[in-house]
Formats: sequence, structure tokens, C-alpha cells
Amino acid sequence: MRITIIGSGNVATHLSAAFKNAGHRIVQVYSRDMHNAALLAYHVGATAIDTLDDISQDTDIFIVAIKDDVIGDTSSRLAKYDKLIAHTSGAVHLEAIRHYTERAGVFYPLQTFSKSKELNFREVPLCIEGADERITKELEKLARTVSNNVYRVSSAQRKVLHLAAVFACNFTNHLYAISKQLLANSDMSFDMLRPLIAETADKIKAHAPETVQTGPAIRNDVQTMDTHLQMLDNEPDLRVLYTLLSQDIIKNHNKAGGDK
Amino acid sequence: MRITIIGSGNVATHLSAAFKNAGHRIVQVYSRDMHNAALLAYHVGATAIDTLDDISQDTDIFIVAIKDDVIGDTSSRLAKYDKLIAHTSGAVHLEAIRHYTERAGVFYPLQTFSKSKELNFREVPLCIEGADERITKELEKLARTVSNNVYRVSSAQRKVLHLAAVFACNFTNHLYAISKQLLANSDMSFDMLRPLIAETADKIKAHAPETVQTGPAIRNDVQTMDTHLQMLDNEPDLRVLYTLLSQDIIKNHNKAGGDK
Repeated sequence: MRITIIGSGNVATHLSAAFKNAGHRIVQVYSRDMHNAALLAYHVGATAIDTLDDISQDTDIFIVAIKDDVIGDTSSRLAKYDKLIAHTSGAVHLEAIRHYTERAGVFYPLQTFSKSKELNFREVPLCIEGADERITKELEKLARTVSNNVYRVSSAQRKVLHLAAVFACNFTNHLYAISKQLLANSDMSFDMLRPLIAETADKIKAHAPETVQTGPAIRNDVQTMDTHLQMLDNEPDLRVLYTLLSQDIIKNHNKAGGDK
Repeated sequence: MRITIIGSGNVATHLSAAFKNAGHRIVQVYSRDMHNAALLAYHVGATAIDTLDDISQDTDIFIVAIKDDVIGDTSSRLAKYDKLIAHTSGAVHLEAIRHYTERAGVFYPLQTFSKSKELNFREVPLCIEGADERITKELEKLARTVSNNVYRVSSAQRKVLHLAAVFACNFTNHLYAISKQLLANSDMSFDMLRPLIAETADKIKAHAPETVQTGPAIRNDVQTMDTHLQMLDNEPDLRVLYTLLSQDIIKNHNKAGGDK
């Protein structure tokens, strides 16, 4: 396919590379910042543009990988070319594009991307939605050329998926940051925790999280939890967080009827 | 070394196997439950016992891998043999053993173990403490025969390390459980999130967590955060958790002086 990439951030970067590697042609890369557009365009053999006035008609699809709040406005300006337009956001409804054209879709890669870190794109879950069955099928076909994990996900489901991802990824990463800070306060290196973090995530590859929960809360080890709360005496936010998460672990466990 | 294992749980199981593989002799495995003692003893070529009265003197060290609240009492009953006694707990002070014998130490593996899941023990951080320098050195030497990550950690530091591990492992796993539940409520499979969880942990192998934080909070994307809170209207605990973690991410970010 001939693909135009709108955006030059993390998602645009990884997606363009995946399309290019799968044999598609990246026609243009647009960014408000010409430097960013040129950098990405160079890597994927495309032309860089920094104004939507320079958009080429010679394309099959616009992949709109930009900030959530400008997806609607940008789509309104792309609609006149009468090409398929798909955004890549977890949080934005299909209607943000469909408001301007029936040739609307979503192509949401459920992954955390950094420009500096390579990953195997074939394992990235791609969540597809189209304004009609024909568009959905077309986007699915494109998605399967770059990933083995293609899902049909409605806008309503995608919203939930995005929220779940905030818990599983963004909040998890912040717990890592909290633990690093706790260690630093006592002159210990975060390296000590890295194997534990890796193993905690590794367990989840083959198990359901509730079946491998460990720690003082699930054992209802009140003495250890009390000690931990005392240690957090000068960190009121962490105290509340500790209490809340521990109570939720206990509640979850009781709901499941467990008593281990 | 000749090693006696007190306990037959996850830590006892993985530690015995690592010692055995490193060429040490496991003399006896003690558990209150003879079935559990026999099972582990069989795997590591040891004798199973279910009463401390049957302890053999023919050993160099007692590794006490049992519940925190019985470490003191059990150590009091082992002290008369005048051998080195080391517990494996993150939360228990060295004094729990030293109260009964000067030949006291700690041999704390900072990892989450499941009996059913193998792992590379050489990567497990071992946190060593001894009642004196000679004991510390002896325990370090033993530790290095099974792991490449051996640290000297005081009882005060170990308490902090254990607390940090609760955040980085136990609480993280519970966030996975929360995200799974959110997906299930909208008929989506946890499989969709598994690659994201793996990548989030993988990033941490080479980066500091605060430098790879992503998501609506660090972008100060108020609209998305409001939407998420509305979606959690019927989940008051998750609402509080969402707010607290988001605020802490923003606070952390501002403290670091960032504005991305």
C-alpha cells in the first residue's frame, strides 16, 4: 500500500518502520517540525513535509499518529482527498474522523514505544476499527502484514483497553520509580530490584495475575504491613497508596474465595 | 558445604535446588508436614524430617526458610547445635536469630518464587548479613557459589528493600490483575495486554523508570484523565487509586523539573 504518515513521534516512528519493512511504500511524513519530519522520512525513504498544503494525492491511506486533541481538526483537513484516514489513538472515538469522512478507521497499536528502543513489531497487538465492514477488512489486511496480533476492537472497548493499559503500563512504571526512590533513600541501587521486576512480568506470560499474587497483603501478614506503614510515616501519599493497594489485594482475594 | 534446609516452601525449594546444583550437600529437609519435607528431600537427595528433635549434627549451616513469625522460635531450638543459622526473610531483623546465638546471619534472595516456575538462580540477588565479619564472609562465599548478584545489606536496609519489593513486585502484579478485570468486564482477553506488560518491564532493564514514564498523567492530559475517572464511576477504590497514582506521577515529574 501507499501510506502517508501524519506525525513523527514514537508511534509514527515504529509504525512507519514496520510498514516499510513489510514492503509498503511510505509516501510522505508530515510533522509541524520539519527537522522531525525529515529525520523519520529519511529512515523510511519518504518525502518530508511540514504543512498539510503539501499533501500528495498519490497515496492510499493517511495514518494519523498525532496528539489526541488535534486528530479531529487534522482529519477535517485531510478529508477532501477522499482517502482512508485512520488514527492510532487508544482514547479517541472513531467519530472524530467519521465526522468528516465515511472513509474512517482506527489502527491502534497497544504498546509503549520509545524511539530509542527497538521491539518486535510482529508481537504488537493492533486494534482495528472501521466505519464499515469493507474498511475494517482493509485495515485488518494491512495490520496482518506487520503484526501477528490483530484484534477487532470497538471504540467503546478501545476506551476500556486504554484505561487498562494505563494501569498495566503507566502506573506499573511509576511503581518501579517509587521503589527506585525508596532504595536510593537508603543508599541502595535500583539494580538490586531489576531481576525481581523482570521475573514479576515474566510470570504473567503464562499465568493469570491473581493466581501468582505474593506478598504480605495476600498472606494477610498484618505485622509486616504495619511495619511498612510505619516506615512510610514521612511519605503520606505512599502510605495511602500502600493501604489502598493492600486492601484491594485482600478484597480481591476474598472475592475469589481463596484462603492461602 | 553441608546444608540443612528448614522449610519446604517456594524459597526453600529454589534455594535447595541451587545449592544442590552448585555441588553442596543437602543433609536434611525439615517441614512440619512430612509429605512436603519428603517431596523436596527427594529432589535434592536429602533426608526428610518433620520434627526438630530429629535434626542431625552432621551439618555446617541451617538455612531457615519459614514464615517470618516462627523464625525466632525455631532459631532458639536450633541454637544448641552451635552451627551457623541464617534466615531468608526480607522483613526479619538479624537479631531474631542473634538473640539465641552469635552464629547468626541472613541469606535473603530478592526474588518472587513459584514452585512450578523455573528461573535462573545465578541472576537472583542475594542479600547477605552476618553477626560478624567472619560470618558475613562465609555467607558471601556460599552465596557466590549459586548467584552472580551478591550484596551486603544491613537489617535496616533489608527492611527498605523488602518494602520497595512490595511496590515493584506485589503491587505491580495487582495492577496487572486490575487491568485484567477491566478488560474482562468489556469482553476482552488479558492476552491483549501481555505484550505491553512484557515491554514495560523490558524497558526497565536498561533505563531508569522515571525517564521512560508515558501515559496521560506525565503529559498532563487532563481530558483523558477525566474520561478515565468517569469510566471508573462505579469503582470508587480504583478511582482513588487512579487519582493518587496520576498525581504522584505529575508531582514526581515536576520535582524532576521536566516539562515533556
